[in-house]
Amino acid sequence: MNPTVVVDPPRTPIDLVDHLARLGTATVHEAIGRRNYFGPSFRPIYPGARIAGTAVPVLVAPGDNLMIHVAIEQTGPGDVLVVVPSSPSPDGYFGELIATQCQTRGVRGLITDTGIRDTAELKDMGFPAWSTAVSAQGTVKATAGSVNLPVVIGGVYVEPGDVIIADDDGVMCVPRAEAETAIEASEARVAKEAKNMESFRNGEISLDVNGLRPLVERLGVTYVKYGS
Amino acid sequence: MNPTVVVDPPRTPIDLVDHLARLGTATVHEAIGRRNYFGPSFRPIYPGARIAGTAVPVLVAPGDNLMIHVAIEQTGPGDVLVVVPSSPSPDGYFGELIATQCQTRGVRGLITDTGIRDTAELKDMGFPAWSTAVSAQGTVKATAGSVNLPVVIGGVYVEPGDVIIADDDGVMCVPRAEAETAIEASEARVAKEAKNMESFRNGEISLDVNGLRPLVERLGVTYVKYGS
Amino acid sequence: MNPTVVVDPPRTPIDLVDHLARLGTATVHEAIGRRNYFGPSFRPIYPGARIAGTAVPVLVAPGDNLMIHVAIEQTGPGDVLVVVPSSPSPDGYFGELIATQCQTRGVRGLITDTGIRDTAELKDMGFPAWSTAVSAQGTVKATAGSVNLPVVIGGVYVEPGDVIIADDDGVMCVPRAEAETAIEASEARVAKEAKNMESFRNGEISLDVNGLRPLVERLGVTYVKYGS
Amino acid sequence: MNPTVVVDPPRTPIDLVDHLARLGTATVHEAIGRRNYFGPSFRPIYPGARIAGTAVPVLVAPGDNLMIHVAIEQTGPGDVLVVVPSSPSPDGYFGELIATQCQTRGVRGLITDTGIRDTAELKDMGFPAWSTAVSAQGTVKATAGSVNLPVVIGGVYVEPGDVIIADDDGVMCVPRAEAETAIEASEARVAKEAKNMESFRNGEISLDVNGLRPLVERLGVTYVKYGS
Amino acid sequence: MNPTVVVDPPRTPIDLVDHLARLGTATVHEAIGRRNYFGPSFRPIYPGARIAGTAVPVLVAPGDNLMIHVAIEQTGPGDVLVVVPSSPSPDGYFGELIATQCQTRGVRGLITDTGIRDTAELKDMGFPAWSTAVSAQGTVKATAGSVNLPVVIGGVYVEPGDVIIADDDGVMCVPRAEAETAIEASEARVAKEAKNMESFRNGEISLDVNGLRPLVERLGVTYVKYGS
Amino acid sequence: MNPTVVVDPPRTPIDLVDHLARLGTATVHEAIGRRNYFGPSFRPIYPGARIAGTAVPVLVAPGDNLMIHVAIEQTGPGDVLVVVPSSPSPDGYFGELIATQCQTRGVRGLITDTGIRDTAELKDMGFPAWSTAVSAQGTVKATAGSVNLPVVIGGVYVEPGDVIIADDDGVMCVPRAEAETAIEASEARVAKEAKNMESFRNGEISLDVNGLRPLVERLGVTYVKYGS
Repeated sequence: MNPTVVVDPPRTPIDLVDHLARLGTATVHEAIGRRNYFGPSFRPIYPGARIAGTAVPVLVAPGDNLMIHVAIEQTGPGDVLVVVPSSPSPDGYFGELIATQCQTRGVRGLITDTGIRDTAELKDMGFPAWSTAVSAQGTVKATAGSVNLPVVIGGVYVEPGDVIIADDDGVMCVPRAEAETAIEASEARVAKEAKNMESFRNGEISLDVNGLRPLVERLGVTYVKYGS
Repeated sequence: MNPTVVVDPPRTPIDLVDHLARLGTATVHEAIGRRNYFGPSFRPIYPGARIAGTAVPVLVAPGDNLMIHVAIEQTGPGDVLVVVPSSPSPDGYFGELIATQCQTRGVRGLITDTGIRDTAELKDMGFPAWSTAVSAQGTVKATAGSVNLPVVIGGVYVEPGDVIIADDDGVMCVPRAEAETAIEASEARVAKEAKNMESFRNGEISLDVNGLRPLVERLGVTYVKYGS
Repeated sequence: MNPTVVVDPPRTPIDLVDHLARLGTATVHEAIGRRNYFGPSFRPIYPGARIAGTAVPVLVAPGDNLMIHVAIEQTGPGDVLVVVPSSPSPDGYFGELIATQCQTRGVRGLITDTGIRDTAELKDMGFPAWSTAVSAQGTVKATAGSVNLPVVIGGVYVEPGDVIIADDDGVMCVPRAEAETAIEASEARVAKEAKNMESFRNGEISLDVNGLRPLVERLGVTYVKYGS
Repeated sequence: MNPTVVVDPPRTPIDLVDHLARLGTATVHEAIGRRNYFGPSFRPIYPGARIAGTAVPVLVAPGDNLMIHVAIEQTGPGDVLVVVPSSPSPDGYFGELIATQCQTRGVRGLITDTGIRDTAELKDMGFPAWSTAVSAQGTVKATAGSVNLPVVIGGVYVEPGDVIIADDDGVMCVPRAEAETAIEASEARVAKEAKNMESFRNGEISLDVNGLRPLVERLGVTYVKYGS
Repeated sequence: MNPTVVVDPPRTPIDLVDHLARLGTATVHEAIGRRNYFGPSFRPIYPGARIAGTAVPVLVAPGDNLMIHVAIEQTGPGDVLVVVPSSPSPDGYFGELIATQCQTRGVRGLITDTGIRDTAELKDMGFPAWSTAVSAQGTVKATAGSVNLPVVIGGVYVEPGDVIIADDDGVMCVPRAEAETAIEASEARVAKEAKNMESFRNGEISLDVNGLRPLVERLGVTYVKYGS
Repeated sequence: MNPTVVVDPPRTPIDLVDHLARLGTATVHEAIGRRNYFGPSFRPIYPGARIAGTAVPVLVAPGDNLMIHVAIEQTGPGDVLVVVPSSPSPDGYFGELIATQCQTRGVRGLITDTGIRDTAELKDMGFPAWSTAVSAQGTVKATAGSVNLPVVIGGVYVEPGDVIIADDDGVMCVPRAEAETAIEASEARVAKEAKNMESFRNGEISLDVNGLRPLVERLGVTYVKYGS
């Protein structure tokens, strides 16, 4: 497989992306059938950010960030860089210099199963990132890889232009073709949850509100007095 | 073992619980003989909370939070949910909807060796939680388990009504029968530490204040000038 | 090897230390050839601190902090305690009482591949610490070790008086003999980066600014239109 | 809690223990409701051993094996040492010298969530052990602990005299009071499995033999031709 | 996404599969550009097996092996089961009963990022398996999933009918469409290596045989006498 | 720091090395004061090997084994390669081709905190290796590093010519200057252990043989009858 940069892949329309950002990972992940979550290893470098953007997948060599530099040219407003090493590496592939280029171009954040550095500076400039490590360990710029080919990250298959959603609960991917149905399913869920929440605030409980008592009974759950 | 919910177990008196909350994990753990700490894997979902409450143990199936819904009905003011999966699972068993029910009933927090989601929302509503993972990965509601039976979590045996203490240093358990003696031992320790702290602020050091020099000498520690 | 405390080892001059603190781990680590970083397991107990100080290495037994008490007497303004257990132990070796003594003496922080406790209190008093664990689990004071002998921590060989730099990106060590050249190399790097940053803010990208295009071409990276 | 050695606790009758050894962990664990397995971190130091024995729980300090020496005196034929550190420690607490004493007294093996050493020698002498680590790192003999008090290991609460079963699949505990019912349930399971196995060897499959087709249909599993 | 079983997906021709088995993971992985290796977490349950087979991907719920039972009916000679949980779970999904059905149908082995049990029995019957855990912890049969839909496992995207190669070095996947070119590239590599090996056995070294000296010189590697 | 190969460093005399091999890691590690063990993460690729050799340290880039090829030329009979990556990498840096060159030159084994591949072949040819991973993932040959400069591996500082001891219990290092005293201390320990072992085989226990009863009494260990 030759090192390849795919130019101008289709992206999920930005209004759908923005809609998904407002919904957040927990809701959307649930709404699309509990799929495509990257797992608990991906953590934000600082709390409080919530973004969605169109994926620009980047495959890099271990300890080598050359292809991130190549990828920047392929990014535009609304994108999110998705950086995957060809074998495990927790090095600090991404810092203030690259983040500045990204921010100038309208890139919304970075997701990687490697490390991030200059985290204090990234926080100051408001450029969010989710990673499996924070690391000052630098990288070289010497090896080819790919940009905008599909990658696997966090156990999820990501294609260029897919939607990445990231917040304090972690990171997930909505395939481009599923963006609209994901929004519909999520909004339905939000509406239902809002109604339930109202009941819960009034002191009702989910056993009743969600009608779980018959299931609990059918499963044979027995209630016994303490000490009996 | 049939799926069982134990109703109305005895709880540690709330004034003892509140007293233990003020003392915190580091002091109480030390005072009761360095026992019953859940280990460094349990982390708060946001910093700064310090709580104590009476344990409501919940045994759940992997990827299934049905029994948390069942457990809510058994909770009351001053309680803490203690959620344990029957085999390892980092999924997000607990989020805003359940937290709202808990908060309405006076539950003070949740401890689990699974995952938590809606962490930004939980922080906003001031509902603290300690877990071994943060995860958006949802769960189903399909399998029976137990409520208010003893559980093992973080290597500690926890019975319903025991005191859970949790803060930025982690989580621990004080058995119900030990609550009073734990407070006494902790207060004695606090008093002694306050006196030592005064000395330390004045520039004295623990080698002298704690009388450690004879021990150091007896152990054969030798002082040598650099380069000699 | 008898338990030994080395008295008055030479320290890196404090003005060099302060200079290195301002530069930070990511820059200095890169400038000295990507060496001496402690790895991503070392995390600050609270975000935002950036320090440098002269290393006071302490070798302790697992679950035993006696030698930290011994080490305090050997510390002075500008020092950083570097605590290493003789076998892996995540216990809470260090808390408010020791931190108070350290702060009184001008010690700037603590680095350890064990655990820290009283983290809320340390944050309140502004005493930073970097560790591989946070733990309330207490330790005893019973076993000899050493102070100011060389140690290995985070895969790095640290001698007394070496410079420890620590910030949100982690921890690194600059050997005493390399402090001046490390500053020179770092400042050169900072100057170059400042110039590049200016270009990046104006919309230029590193492919051009860093002259990477010929390398990318030589490596055979091919640009293809999506779908072609 | 004072350091305590409990003398002559009741043990599960040896014929029940031997019966459980023949059944093995996978069968018994399943038969008693999928409880009391120590988890996948516990591995045999060499493959092929299968034992059961009565638990002699030992609580040791980190890096300190004194209480194993104390425990030996409390052991007899059919026992299994169950060694738990008071905080995490992967050191090599147990080797040839202690194993020889154990073997002489009829002890059948050792289980620990610490480390084992002299593993080649233990294999040669046929003394099996299950642990979470193999380590040459030695320990001291300096700190008190307990023998024959209940411990938590592998997330399971173990009392002296309970049955420990260990084989290539790991380790589990059958509480003394449950030994007989565990055997009955296991034998019922074995009988049923033997019959099923016969069918499977003849080419039948569990979908039919176990009557799973209606469940699969009820769950809405759809069969589609590839490419349709 | 409804629970789905895809029937009769195309499989890589069995002669290609057998050819790839003889080549092994290290060679084939290298020959196809260092891609598609499942990583070092996947280990054989016993050493010495080397297999290749056509993938039958199975998506299961955490702690639930129902869909493996469903999958068996879809297997035939030369297949390999590839079992992936929808969220992390180290339970023992697979043991002797299922292995017997598999072996009867000509299935060559099982790959999973969950746990395996009855490992001693599987070794005795010569049914190899690679997993990220060994665990006696049983599972239920209650939840739908999928068979023969694509899955991600070990960071690799696997489609039904792709070739799985597994040996003592781990597990990898060769996409169906690449099987022939993978064999060609591998055989070329084997031929070249055989020639090099001959030279190495005669005392030549790779610096010369592989012509690496000019590269080493160009990289500025300096040879210095010890102590100079 | 320029990439450097140090030629002809002094080596520990081979008779001392061979003597240490016979003693093994557990004994020597204990005899030199419980220092210099690489920790439980280093495991043999096959059981049963026990070697000692003189260290040839090799610093490699992540995912790049060029410097191992360079190192081979610097090796001779009795050496052991000690391969350390400049940042964490579990790739398979070492396989049959390099092992053949090593074996031809009398190299006794390889130690690395990266991965090994061709493990079945290495076992067949009797070339032992200890690593923190087994991995088929290949590496490139593109980046400079160093040979025969000191390295840190497994938390231990290793200089060229130091003695590496490796067996089923793991790996350790004896500094060249300490080889003779290490042998003396180890032999003294062996002699004492042999005598103790004799006693243990006769049914005596270490509480008496090692005179531990007074210590146990002084520590306040209390013996109580079960149920009292």
